[in-house]
Amino acid sequence: MGESERHDLVVVGAGPAGMTAGMYGVRSGLDTLILEKGISGGLSNEAPEIENYPGFDRIGGMELASKIKEHVSRYVVIRELEKVVAIEASPEGDMVVTSDKDSYRTKAVVLCTGTRHRRLGVKGEDAFLGKGVSYCATCDGFFFKNKPVAVVGGGDSAAREALYLRKLGCMVTLIHRRDKLRAEPYLQQKLEEAGISIRWNSIIKEIRGDKVLRSVIIDTGGVESELAIAGLFVSIGEEPNSELAKEMGVSLDPHGYIITDRSQRTNLKGVYAAGDVTGGVRQVVVACAEGAIAALSAYNDLL
Amino acid sequence: MGESERHDLVVVGAGPAGMTAGMYGVRSGLDTLILEKGISGGLSNEAPEIENYPGFDRIGGMELASKIKEHVSRYVVIRELEKVVAIEASPEGDMVVTSDKDSYRTKAVVLCTGTRHRRLGVKGEDAFLGKGVSYCATCDGFFFKNKPVAVVGGGDSAAREALYLRKLGCMVTLIHRRDKLRAEPYLQQKLEEAGISIRWNSIIKEIRGDKVLRSVIIDTGGVESELAIAGLFVSIGEEPNSELAKEMGVSLDPHGYIITDRSQRTNLKGVYAAGDVTGGVRQVVVACAEGAIAALSAYNDLL
Repeated sequence: MGESERHDLVVVGAGPAGMTAGMYGVRSGLDTLILEKGISGGLSNEAPEIENYPGFDRIGGMELASKIKEHVSRYVVIRELEKVVAIEASPEGDMVVTSDKDSYRTKAVVLCTGTRHRRLGVKGEDAFLGKGVSYCATCDGFFFKNKPVAVVGGGDSAAREALYLRKLGCMVTLIHRRDKLRAEPYLQQKLEEAGISIRWNSIIKEIRGDKVLRSVIIDTGGVESELAIAGLFVSIGEEPNSELAKEMGVSLDPHGYIITDRSQRTNLKGVYAAGDVTGGVRQVVVACAEGAIAALSAYNDLL
Repeated sequence: MGESERHDLVVVGAGPAGMTAGMYGVRSGLDTLILEKGISGGLSNEAPEIENYPGFDRIGGMELASKIKEHVSRYVVIRELEKVVAIEASPEGDMVVTSDKDSYRTKAVVLCTGTRHRRLGVKGEDAFLGKGVSYCATCDGFFFKNKPVAVVGGGDSAAREALYLRKLGCMVTLIHRRDKLRAEPYLQQKLEEAGISIRWNSIIKEIRGDKVLRSVIIDTGGVESELAIAGLFVSIGEEPNSELAKEMGVSLDPHGYIITDRSQRTNLKGVYAAGDVTGGVRQVVVACAEGAIAALSAYNDLL
């Protein structure tokens, strides 16, 4: 084994947060490297169209991610298909980042590892992703204005998604596997006031359509029925990709999201986090902002 | 006087934060109005070029502001040249926003009133703005890479600007009116280590050049000298435009910036703040993100 490459800053993950952190790192004079286990763009690649990233009226999620990648690549190297498997403090006071391909020494790390959607795991879910199946009403709800949609889930997040869609004029059915919601009573009352019908004790068996989603097959206590909808919003939870952070000893909240202060610092010296893995509103512009702040904090701390 | 116009959300200020808040407000189903005392864009209009707003390689500050304005104007009305002079709680539980032209009833307010630069007030300062005179090294420093520049000021911010520019390879002179810096000792040591020369007891008398800045005339204890530089970074402080907030009873920090939580809520119910008036790193993408978060918080609170 030769000597490890040395950097000032290693960014883990090349979604909008990580890419922006990398650019700000280099622009602050830090020798910065981004490592990405898959391809750049993160979950923004999944958004069929993004209409609320300021400056772009309407752009495909993948196209926006690709524009940001092109932009930041003027400054920073992104190594794709390279998965970080461990980050450990070294006796010399810096850190050793070990990937499935190499290892690196660095003074600071920004964790931008994002989240993954909890999926239903039913037929049609992959096929109609972006063609009716969505995991984010704030992102995609506007495209279903005044149309019939269903939301799957029973927590605060599902209730909020349902209310958000109702406010956009959608006819909303909430589908929940139990006979009561976990959502707070206040939200439940709002659901009732908004006239949102709830299918209790119900699970989705299958998602059907042609070029786009047309209906779902619902199993209600053993009885199957078909519900015609234009959109299905799956809101059964996100899972932060925070396993690496946890192994490092980074403090997580009860849901597994990384806890940071407003400067994106974690509890560990030299370790910052940005984007969806820190929780929050899951918007591209917010992830970018957190990435920028994290890199500037690293720069200030290394000064 | 007729009945006041009624809205769910009034945004004060149409810089990047306010414009984004307006768009997110409308997209969340809130009847939203933006009031701007001057023209849209805020201080971003002053940045000669912005290279670090993710998605745009290089764009004039005014051009970016104009793109964002065009974008958000698909959703929200911006009334320019209308200055808000008071916001008061009404007996009915909502708020009355009074401008120099009209008055409005609203359930929620987002304050995006920004900051103003403290200026030197010397000859040439206006003429060379964007042609060598800058108020933000993080924004503009990259354009002066490896060139001679001066920073005016003696606080943490001036020291950080000087170090930032030095790291970019600039030959940096720090010009300070007193015989010692206010900047923290740690930063002062860094300045020394970085070989940044300091002109003590010195003030700028005049900024000179032709198409671009070429030099400054410095008065050091009554003796004038000329210093050839490509860039002059004025870092003698920002002043938050928080007078309106203060009158409303919004909590400010010791420097006059509005205090918010991570959801951009202030201490007052229904009152949110976003962008430079809340302090922080003064980057367009961060202002946009805070605007988005503020509007989503207003939406959630009004639910």
